[in-house]
Amino acid sequence: MKILNTGIHAVKGVQSSAVHAGFKSNVNQNDLALIYFPQGATVAGLFTRNLVKAWPVLYDQALLNNHSDFKAILINSGNANACNGASGQETIEKVVASLAHQAQIDSQEILVCSTGVIGAPLAFEPFEAALPELVSQLQSASSEAVAQAILTTDTISKETAYSMTIDNQTVHIGGMAKGSGMIHPNLGTMLAFLTLDIDCNPELLHHLLIEAVEASFNSISVDGDTSTNDTVFLCATGETTIEMTDKNIASLQALITKACQDLAQAIIRDGEGASKFITVHVQGAYSWEDANKVAQAIATSNLVKTALCGEDPNWGRVLSAVGNSQVANIDPFKVDIYFKSKFGVVQPCHLGSYADFSQNLAKKVLSATDIDIMVNLNLAEAEAKIWTCDLTHDYIVINADYHT
Amino acid sequence: MKILNTGIHAVKGVQSSAVHAGFKSNVNQNDLALIYFPQGATVAGLFTRNLVKAWPVLYDQALLNNHSDFKAILINSGNANACNGASGQETIEKVVASLAHQAQIDSQEILVCSTGVIGAPLAFEPFEAALPELVSQLQSASSEAVAQAILTTDTISKETAYSMTIDNQTVHIGGMAKGSGMIHPNLGTMLAFLTLDIDCNPELLHHLLIEAVEASFNSISVDGDTSTNDTVFLCATGETTIEMTDKNIASLQALITKACQDLAQAIIRDGEGASKFITVHVQGAYSWEDANKVAQAIATSNLVKTALCGEDPNWGRVLSAVGNSQVANIDPFKVDIYFKSKFGVVQPCHLGSYADFSQNLAKKVLSATDIDIMVNLNLAEAEAKIWTCDLTHDYIVINADYHT
Repeated sequence: MKILNTGIHAVKGVQSSAVHAGFKSNVNQNDLALIYFPQGATVAGLFTRNLVKAWPVLYDQALLNNHSDFKAILINSGNANACNGASGQETIEKVVASLAHQAQIDSQEILVCSTGVIGAPLAFEPFEAALPELVSQLQSASSEAVAQAILTTDTISKETAYSMTIDNQTVHIGGMAKGSGMIHPNLGTMLAFLTLDIDCNPELLHHLLIEAVEASFNSISVDGDTSTNDTVFLCATGETTIEMTDKNIASLQALITKACQDLAQAIIRDGEGASKFITVHVQGAYSWEDANKVAQAIATSNLVKTALCGEDPNWGRVLSAVGNSQVANIDPFKVDIYFKSKFGVVQPCHLGSYADFSQNLAKKVLSATDIDIMVNLNLAEAEAKIWTCDLTHDYIVINADYHT
Repeated sequence: MKILNTGIHAVKGVQSSAVHAGFKSNVNQNDLALIYFPQGATVAGLFTRNLVKAWPVLYDQALLNNHSDFKAILINSGNANACNGASGQETIEKVVASLAHQAQIDSQEILVCSTGVIGAPLAFEPFEAALPELVSQLQSASSEAVAQAILTTDTISKETAYSMTIDNQTVHIGGMAKGSGMIHPNLGTMLAFLTLDIDCNPELLHHLLIEAVEASFNSISVDGDTSTNDTVFLCATGETTIEMTDKNIASLQALITKACQDLAQAIIRDGEGASKFITVHVQGAYSWEDANKVAQAIATSNLVKTALCGEDPNWGRVLSAVGNSQVANIDPFKVDIYFKSKFGVVQPCHLGSYADFSQNLAKKVLSATDIDIMVNLNLAEAEAKIWTCDLTHDYIVINADYHT
């Protein structure tokens, strides 16, 4: 696997453009972006599990239930087009008709995404005024403007790209994302767009995306909340054909998962208020489901997350979070806990009880920015990893002092 | 129902005492307490659902599986006797034998509770030295020393008592508690002790306690975590006999529930770092279970809790928390949201969308210390209430800057 710096343009023929349409107040910030596939792409999509879904999520889900061939993804930032009454759906229909006309494509070939403030009406006029310029500026040289335009409260754009030899062909994947979703004011959304030059049937593409998202976007946790707009699209242009053997599919899966993990981890690292990047690694469970539940319980515990912010080796809070996971077949008297970083490893808990450990070494280990909490349930072989961040003063500042 | 200021001594014949045994470093703070029933009491107990349980919880659960007649409850603060190896169980056995000898009762008639630091060995010697004085000082005049001795990081003691006429008899209930558990450093525990002068069979007493705890201690949420030591005991001395008709049982239930709610709400109000007392009231659900799930999702959302700290009428976070509850049959387009306090009521969300409301009134409503978030799902008639507090800078200070 070779890392590239091309973002979504790692895949030939993908075009993009971005303009300022007026959804953000700062005229120097673009807020409308277009990803365009002149030859079309097979698209797989996954959406928020929140029961309260924004209009673009409902719109795209309905489209993807009917077909999977698309030519355009239109993304606006600054307004989530959520919880704003029936006009939100009407605006989408007008916008899509207008873009179809401008780009000379079928309106059924257009997907839409929104991110920003929820509960505010989304006007059609800014789209109408901006679409001609957006379409005329399509290019395939740089993804930077598009990766910037989809941001809301993110501090940096998030892109990744790789190439890999599969079945003697060079396969490319590119991606960009915005976040860090749940840590930001007003439920900033997680959006991710991936391009792939493989020829792949929609069912397999959907399956590959589900697996990749489970091990990446669904394995990060900032505060446990999901947004109304969260969306991930994987777009396969079909330029490259490989034989879909089990071995080649496994390679393809690894490639897609790696790109998704890069973007997911970039979202955690950009969490405003986050001072530490935490990997929760639970081993020795009877199943992945059990290990994942325990890891989620640790990663969403405010007590664990504040202790890490304070660089306190408070293993009691970790053990109690394990107990709070409600995984029924855990034996508390078998649990081992370790803290690990580039400065070393300490084991403060052995078989569910205090283990003699160096407080000095523990402080040093926890002073690192990247910390692993490793929990071994010592029952069987299954394991799971979750990435999260600490809970800091700045989280409160951002979320309490921000006003709608 | 008439409120009394007698605490657990509202019930005649209940004795108590407290001394400093040495578990807390401050010699002016008592840390060992005894509640004593010379004529015995029928005891019902409920314990933490955390899979990681302290030794006294495991010990009491085993005893209560065998019988329900007890004469003494011994409580130490300063050490949780949890996650400290097999010596924790051995200490309990020695302590119980010593108290049985001192008080001339059977060791099977003694229950034990601990609260404080977890993962530290609990020595027998401080108990051995303190028990003679503890037994000799038993009295029934005041519960204040005992209510103080069970505290850890609480800022005030928490007591309640009521009398009520049932079946032409005056029935008394008294109680005390410590908390606020999960908001405090190092998993401070929730303990509650209630006395009742009714003659009641163990099965009915257990059932009455379950119902009362569901509507009180299980309906408060600070940060969603439970401790290793949480325990509630309801002790019926049997001095008063009433006919157990449906009507009388309902009155008794109301009395017990009221006392438990007082103590539960006092725990929330004493949450260090808490600046607001929040009542989450979910109405219009198909079942209590659904309403409770939605209320819990709102009450444990960091985004909702930080918004309330900032006095921000961020109804989008509330609506998104409703969607995060994963109650399958909610219709987001039917949800109404209100904020209410002594300063008035505003409705920022009608049928899942933005409702025109006065920002000025909203600010005024949210400036109160006691705030109600009312959510109507508009589906059916079931409802549930959860009490919680906001998430503040001080929560982070207490939990991040506290070191084990």
